[in-house]
Amino acid sequence: MSVIHQAFQVPYSFNIIFTKSLFSSNNKELLNFLSNFGETSFQKKILFLIDEGVYEKHSYLIDSIKNYFRSQNQISLAEEILILPGGEPVKNDSQYLDKTLHAINKFGIDRHSFVAAIGGGAFLDMVGYASCIAHRGVKHIRIPTTVLSQNDSGVGVKNGINFSGKKNFLGTFSPPVAVFNDSDFLTTLSDRDWRSGISEAIKVALIKDLEFFEWLEENAQAMANREIEIMSKQIFRSAALHTNHISSGDPFEMGSARPLDFGHWAAHKIEYLSNFEIRHGEAVAIGIALDSIYSQLLGFITDQETNRIIQLLKKVGFILYHESLEENDKMNLWEGLNEFREHLGGRLTITILEKLGKGKEIHEVDFDLMKLAVDRLKLTID
Amino acid sequence: MSVIHQAFQVPYSFNIIFTKSLFSSNNKELLNFLSNFGETSFQKKILFLIDEGVYEKHSYLIDSIKNYFRSQNQISLAEEILILPGGEPVKNDSQYLDKTLHAINKFGIDRHSFVAAIGGGAFLDMVGYASCIAHRGVKHIRIPTTVLSQNDSGVGVKNGINFSGKKNFLGTFSPPVAVFNDSDFLTTLSDRDWRSGISEAIKVALIKDLEFFEWLEENAQAMANREIEIMSKQIFRSAALHTNHISSGDPFEMGSARPLDFGHWAAHKIEYLSNFEIRHGEAVAIGIALDSIYSQLLGFITDQETNRIIQLLKKVGFILYHESLEENDKMNLWEGLNEFREHLGGRLTITILEKLGKGKEIHEVDFDLMKLAVDRLKLTID
Repeated sequence: MSVIHQAFQVPYSFNIIFTKSLFSSNNKELLNFLSNFGETSFQKKILFLIDEGVYEKHSYLIDSIKNYFRSQNQISLAEEILILPGGEPVKNDSQYLDKTLHAINKFGIDRHSFVAAIGGGAFLDMVGYASCIAHRGVKHIRIPTTVLSQNDSGVGVKNGINFSGKKNFLGTFSPPVAVFNDSDFLTTLSDRDWRSGISEAIKVALIKDLEFFEWLEENAQAMANREIEIMSKQIFRSAALHTNHISSGDPFEMGSARPLDFGHWAAHKIEYLSNFEIRHGEAVAIGIALDSIYSQLLGFITDQETNRIIQLLKKVGFILYHESLEENDKMNLWEGLNEFREHLGGRLTITILEKLGKGKEIHEVDFDLMKLAVDRLKLTID
Repeated sequence: MSVIHQAFQVPYSFNIIFTKSLFSSNNKELLNFLSNFGETSFQKKILFLIDEGVYEKHSYLIDSIKNYFRSQNQISLAEEILILPGGEPVKNDSQYLDKTLHAINKFGIDRHSFVAAIGGGAFLDMVGYASCIAHRGVKHIRIPTTVLSQNDSGVGVKNGINFSGKKNFLGTFSPPVAVFNDSDFLTTLSDRDWRSGISEAIKVALIKDLEFFEWLEENAQAMANREIEIMSKQIFRSAALHTNHISSGDPFEMGSARPLDFGHWAAHKIEYLSNFEIRHGEAVAIGIALDSIYSQLLGFITDQETNRIIQLLKKVGFILYHESLEENDKMNLWEGLNEFREHLGGRLTITILEKLGKGKEIHEVDFDLMKLAVDRLKLTID
């Protein structure tokens, strides 16, 4: 027998650019990025797709984008700008993936050209997936429009769609070439969408950064009052923590560890059982509260610390219980844990709190204790 | 404005293991690989898929595989072994991708479990693609059964399926975790399949290794006579050159260069125009001959050197012309070049020969000269 050994490393790098009024004629961020990216000896193309929900509130976008590219001749804008639904529907129905792929084909977007998606996390997930699989990867630019996508999912390296009733069953690890976080989009968010993303900031603070957690406590009311400067600071800090976590760990998750998924196993199940009426961020808030109580029951954090977490979540405006956690639905909890294990593969691995600002992975869950955590959680609704 | 910079490297490594009788009870190669791969604290699963064309000639495979895994309890074999068509049909009709994805779901193959594909290049392309997108990537093992897949495509990092009439429009760069090249599969190949893969060896020799080209000249008759020892040597050397090229260059093809695609632009078009009746390797033989003559017309190689290439290809048994290259089909050549450019993106880049054993990239093609090359090529059929 003989063997050939193959080994190599693939380098990835991209910037997350925080900006305002991305398509105003005097904002050159995007044009500068496009003209300097990669090989410059030929004209590249760019295709835009916009989340319907964003477009409804920013209907000037199509004209702005066309004007923005009219002033130059380095980049060719595809004739059509696609408007597709956002939220879970765009990941559930494969017609939207097909439409995106056909547009990439029709407008001749090749591996050196760009697909830019403007929208919430689910929308970016679908377009990112299409961009990764077309021609084995065209260049993908993310322009996230919600708090959640600006501080977490949009700055990460994953994409995905649902298949056969399973969330994110299809997807890849595939970094974008750039992320543009435009704070203008935040001003028109509904209160629910404004609030939803804050739970991911609380999550990452709890498992990684006590000081940030304390900052969030101090600024909870300001965030609840929709103070954009405070929200922007939160987004920047949270995005930086998420970004740093990815590059310092296992970016394409080849091992079992998923410390960023604190609070997420229950969240996934609650989202599903509510038929996605509960937003991801809202479900994560419940999941954080549940796993914090469970951490307390295991003796890692104190009663007082648990209360600080619950109070912060409530101050921001989250409701920390959902009927799908009801006692007679025992199966839901077990199923949730099992589905989570299956998606990650290998051993069950969930993250709890070792202390405020530090996560800890465990591989076994005591069901009776978790049921007790659910009961305690229910007491938080008043 | 502020910026967060993200950068990381993702390491990949895998072995290409040359073996015989992979599933015989005293061959522990595969079991050893599976039991030692990654984390070992939980039982992993493996799902097999077999190319129908291979199964017809090796119908013992299902029993052999079941016996092979019966003797141990470290790895759990999925109850069902799927038999699906091979060749271009498996890439053209998305029902086969769907069947593969549903099987991955049904048998609970997660990110730490394995999908093993036994078959020719097209079959491995489809299963590799399914494995890469399911759960954002389950572990994929390739067991190539043709000369072409053992010496070239099967040892590479690409996968893909066709979409909307475009070859490989959907796909990813995604290395397998292991490749097992079992020479037993070669013995039952049809003469056409036996021969087809030799063109990729001639290609890689011509652009990278004069000594290997001379070895191929010396052993052309032995390969034509189906001498398995000589063929195995050719496969090993060719696989090593392809492997080395990938790791020393740009594995995921982020730039424009594609030096391994010598002879391939015309090949893709001929395959398509013949409705895939011409096999990939047969079309590549024509493409090599055409681009060699073009290299000669540009003054890079001599008439005598060009003849050596033509004679080698003919000695192995290739027919070096196809009616789709006819003069009145001018458009075909142009379209072929343009589609090739579009798939790679950016500037047109094709590889010609600077000398025997060294490729050279060019970005412009003189159409009249290429037409002349086609005319000369036609004279090679006698």
